[in-house]
Amino acid sequence: MLSRVNGLHAGSIVGVLKSRLDSALRGVDDHSDHPTMFCHHEMEARDVTKDSMAPPGWSGCGAVSAFDQAPVINRVETFSREFVAFVRVSASDGTGGWGQVSPYHADISAQVLHRQVVPWALGQPASDIAALVNSIPEHEHKFPGSYLRRALAGLETALWDRAGKIQQKSVCELLGGTPGPIRAYGSSMRRDITAQAEAERLVALRQQFGFDAFKFRVGAECGHDVDQWPGRSEEIVPKVRRALGPDVSLLVDGNGGFSPSRAITLGQMLEDEGVEHFEEPCLYWELEQTREVTQALSLDVTGGEQDCDLATWRRMVEMPAVDIVQPDVCYVGGMLRAMKVAKMAQLQGLPCTPHCANLSMVTLFTMHLLRAIPNAGKYLEFSIEGPEYYPWQEGLFVESPFTVNEGQVTVSDKPGWGVEIHPDWLADTTYQVSELPH
Amino acid sequence: MLSRVNGLHAGSIVGVLKSRLDSALRGVDDHSDHPTMFCHHEMEARDVTKDSMAPPGWSGCGAVSAFDQAPVINRVETFSREFVAFVRVSASDGTGGWGQVSPYHADISAQVLHRQVVPWALGQPASDIAALVNSIPEHEHKFPGSYLRRALAGLETALWDRAGKIQQKSVCELLGGTPGPIRAYGSSMRRDITAQAEAERLVALRQQFGFDAFKFRVGAECGHDVDQWPGRSEEIVPKVRRALGPDVSLLVDGNGGFSPSRAITLGQMLEDEGVEHFEEPCLYWELEQTREVTQALSLDVTGGEQDCDLATWRRMVEMPAVDIVQPDVCYVGGMLRAMKVAKMAQLQGLPCTPHCANLSMVTLFTMHLLRAIPNAGKYLEFSIEGPEYYPWQEGLFVESPFTVNEGQVTVSDKPGWGVEIHPDWLADTTYQVSELPH
Repeated sequence: MLSRVNGLHAGSIVGVLKSRLDSALRGVDDHSDHPTMFCHHEMEARDVTKDSMAPPGWSGCGAVSAFDQAPVINRVETFSREFVAFVRVSASDGTGGWGQVSPYHADISAQVLHRQVVPWALGQPASDIAALVNSIPEHEHKFPGSYLRRALAGLETALWDRAGKIQQKSVCELLGGTPGPIRAYGSSMRRDITAQAEAERLVALRQQFGFDAFKFRVGAECGHDVDQWPGRSEEIVPKVRRALGPDVSLLVDGNGGFSPSRAITLGQMLEDEGVEHFEEPCLYWELEQTREVTQALSLDVTGGEQDCDLATWRRMVEMPAVDIVQPDVCYVGGMLRAMKVAKMAQLQGLPCTPHCANLSMVTLFTMHLLRAIPNAGKYLEFSIEGPEYYPWQEGLFVESPFTVNEGQVTVSDKPGWGVEIHPDWLADTTYQVSELPH
Repeated sequence: MLSRVNGLHAGSIVGVLKSRLDSALRGVDDHSDHPTMFCHHEMEARDVTKDSMAPPGWSGCGAVSAFDQAPVINRVETFSREFVAFVRVSASDGTGGWGQVSPYHADISAQVLHRQVVPWALGQPASDIAALVNSIPEHEHKFPGSYLRRALAGLETALWDRAGKIQQKSVCELLGGTPGPIRAYGSSMRRDITAQAEAERLVALRQQFGFDAFKFRVGAECGHDVDQWPGRSEEIVPKVRRALGPDVSLLVDGNGGFSPSRAITLGQMLEDEGVEHFEEPCLYWELEQTREVTQALSLDVTGGEQDCDLATWRRMVEMPAVDIVQPDVCYVGGMLRAMKVAKMAQLQGLPCTPHCANLSMVTLFTMHLLRAIPNAGKYLEFSIEGPEYYPWQEGLFVESPFTVNEGQVTVSDKPGWGVEIHPDWLADTTYQVSELPH
């Protein structure tokens, strides 16, 4: 086992990135014949130096792991395209699992994973997911924000898949939940669609899949009170309500489009139309603006999808800035960090309705999360966009985990995430591997 | 001119990345014969769609720039190594300038620049720096945090160089300042050094360069009250004070090493030893912890180098969490964003002593900043580490802008940044270019 005792800039520790696609697709992901114990220890602080600015070549204090007998992470592979990148983690006992970094510029997140996440993970106990998730952002604290956490989610979700496969349990069970059904809401991503066309397609989707809840868009993304086109928000809300009738739950997403005063005015119209969920009314980084809207309206004001810093989350929940928290499992850095957000919200009496805007693994992660937390919101976000909008989410899985029946999806009891990445998709990717020396 | 009207995911707009090193090193950076007017307009909000999640191929509203007659950015080139990446921007009138993305994983920041910053800049007026700096983080709001701003700094600082070369003024003059000298403090980056060895080298540096102020390290980076080795912090402070005598200004950096109570205890010892500046005592994202230390101690508690979100900066200054603000020009996203932080601090009566921890262009940017803001702190951070610690900062410039005389460096009156990147360094880099079609 490689002792990770160097304090030098993490990127230079493990340079074992090479193109080996031929051997890469040999399976290490199916280890159902290795039902060894899954143990979730609290690990003591590792003795690697904390100073990522230390001079190259300088050795810090010697590190002696408390887990020298436990299987350690010995290989992390990524299979990347621009929009999606899957991660395969392997441990010294031959076990392994699959995860995914956050979509969009996923190839860059994969690079960040190899450069800034994996060097802190190789040689560490593969089952102590919490220790890695807690320590890596501190080691890389000069890179606050999105990319590091998008990358961390890739490692973390792969480790959960491994843990589930070892224990022959679904991830939601490992996290304290149970497999089973979840109500989904059909989530529109489009603003280029007229009120009439949106209403018509939601009606059709309701008939086809049985959804009894839908979200659609108002305002414009970071729109500063300028609508996508004049009058669109005022038109689409009543149009959709009339088309779907009074029994369907309606949610709208402002994507940071409004000032507080415009959001409150619009929100009163939303309340009149029985809309129950008003997402991201204001620029998300302006928490006081969002709180102003939350306090002024009786419907649920929601937000948090972009927030990946747990200190900011703590502040958001303590204010509280929103009525419902919406962490994105991939943006925030994986399951445990999303569950920390959910726990903070629970203590404040707030439900958690996570953000998951496409049918890559992020929606699967969110399904497991919702079946595991006590303050799960009323429904799962479920994108209704097809290949013309999300061509990059096509062909990811051998069998889709996203079948909708009567408006519900189901978390299976298969081990881990319960899904198999399609080998044809993997074969046409950029492959990178970081690993311990053999 | 390419009209940027597509709302699709920014990365796919401009795919003109190609290896063309042969032609890349032809100069566009010296346009001292083009003394056209530099105009700093307030630009109206551009009419490109704000929705970066819009479907590929979808066209938003037509964009008509108010600057159709003004030179537009038509090419952005990067010259990258892992630790340093320079940026060259060119405009349609043949003018151009050089900047730098933030050091460390600079090659990744360069990739983020081409993918997420440049697509919003090509075709836009090259002189309206503020409009770009204000709009790009909103366009890419799904990527809060470090990388996007590290990349943005590369474009922004290159645009300032261009502006200075057009006007035949140094950047500090464009920003309202004057060329001239700045007191520097010698800044140690090392924690692997004993108290005795640190004291000895600071004495030698004082004799050699005339520094009358030094910063050295206490605690351990994100150390959770565990020192680099037991007793190091308690030993090094008096040792350095005795060695340098009572007339030298002493600063220490905790790099987030302490809890508030330990920081306050240590801080009282620092005060007894006449230390005047206690940097990052606590984990930087825990603003309330830092404020607790600030309120308990009479010396100046300082911080903010990692913070790149202006809403967080506003909160930090309003609390105030620190006595002195320390934005890093490259981490925060360039000169204008650093000046926004300085302005917030000024309104609160706080000085600004930026972070700049190596002798790449970030220290040069900071020199110009300090000569341009009214609330400049007492000194410039000036790394004392040599090639054994920072091998990657060697050979960057034809002539170093960092000559120290009697403890001072000097902002020159040369146009722009007043520095020329060394062609030998540029020749051995990864080259990427994004440009408008010819």
